[in-house]
Amino acid sequence: MHRTTVKVADGALDANQTIAEANRADFDRASVSVVNLMSAPGAGKTRLLERALERAEGNRVGVLEGDVRGSLDADRLSLLHVPVVQINTDPAFGGECHLDANMVRSAIPDLPLDEIDLLVIENVGNLVCPAEFRVGEHRRWMISSVAEGEDKPLKYPLMFRSCELVVVNKIDLLPHVDFSVERFLANLERVNPEAETILTSARTGEGIDAWRERLLGPAAAGRPAGASA
Amino acid sequence: MHRTTVKVADGALDANQTIAEANRADFDRASVSVVNLMSAPGAGKTRLLERALERAEGNRVGVLEGDVRGSLDADRLSLLHVPVVQINTDPAFGGECHLDANMVRSAIPDLPLDEIDLLVIENVGNLVCPAEFRVGEHRRWMISSVAEGEDKPLKYPLMFRSCELVVVNKIDLLPHVDFSVERFLANLERVNPEAETILTSARTGEGIDAWRERLLGPAAAGRPAGASA
Repeated sequence: MHRTTVKVADGALDANQTIAEANRADFDRASVSVVNLMSAPGAGKTRLLERALERAEGNRVGVLEGDVRGSLDADRLSLLHVPVVQINTDPAFGGECHLDANMVRSAIPDLPLDEIDLLVIENVGNLVCPAEFRVGEHRRWMISSVAEGEDKPLKYPLMFRSCELVVVNKIDLLPHVDFSVERFLANLERVNPEAETILTSARTGEGIDAWRERLLGPAAAGRPAGASA
Repeated sequence: MHRTTVKVADGALDANQTIAEANRADFDRASVSVVNLMSAPGAGKTRLLERALERAEGNRVGVLEGDVRGSLDADRLSLLHVPVVQINTDPAFGGECHLDANMVRSAIPDLPLDEIDLLVIENVGNLVCPAEFRVGEHRRWMISSVAEGEDKPLKYPLMFRSCELVVVNKIDLLPHVDFSVERFLANLERVNPEAETILTSARTGEGIDAWRERLLGPAAAGRPAGASA
């Protein structure tokens, strides 16, 4: 006699979770570490990646670019001679405001997983839905620009809570905007006391060495080129 | 003999459209003009409303605040003695990244429509989905901060295309960011050649008179107080 196995489906988010786990298994099998990088539009995701990757000698990095439309960011990053795959959520996926696990899965065959050790997934610029969809990543990071204001952790708590690293970017603008780093960090503490933070300016280079080291690992920071800005 | 009427349902967006039309009818019946104000997080929607409303003498304005969570912006605006109703998409609506017509409908009973002539709906900070959901508004406007970068019209074309007015805010930061107003306007022209634009700095007051006049009508600008900033 066979026991009947009863499966209970919890809806669409579970389908996403199933596919995210399949993606994760593929990444693990290829020994590729995956960062899901999120932010509001214009916080500086692409620029910070450029700053890190322009000195990524020896690191084998790939990028998966998520945008509603176009390949502006992918075109910029491919100038740095890293493999870049673009996902547009507009024509293929109905204009979605986030990447989901199935979109990432559709890109995996185009990714040279055997030739990279790190994959950065640059999500669609949005502080809400990207936080709700795991895509198979190992780490979830976000960037918050000081131009956006110090209240953002309180207004978008799920995003700030779901990330282990918050990069506070555009700190060169601090003299020109009403933004207290101290109050921002206090707001962040209220929603995610465990979050690590790095302060950066992609424009002046301040904090970029710390950011590059965090992204590429201690090995990258130990190189002679690490002394720049 | 009766003819059979066949109705074809086109799905969820049509339900939104039906409710948006009901909202619009309610607004029209009360002679309330409605602006749906959209932007990325931190572009300055609330600050620009504050700047306009602090000299709104004689204008009867109400605000409907959309946020994932909290009432930070509503609290700020209620200091200006305008009626403000907060919609949180998080607990009641599953953390949605936009307002839809049904959420706005749920707030209408709390709005003193007979006591206002203008209703500003401050949408959730997001450049994607708010553009897809009409809520019963007469006008769709957006704010784009120069800190976000000049490529945004190309990356979020539906949002920029769906608005008749694009306010370019934080122009006091122009000396400190890599943003060419000319290139931004050329990008905007590519996706929405009809769009009107106003350049503002909520911080220095530049362009605020033009913004206030656009929001409150020529009557507001003709007042003695209009000479400020």
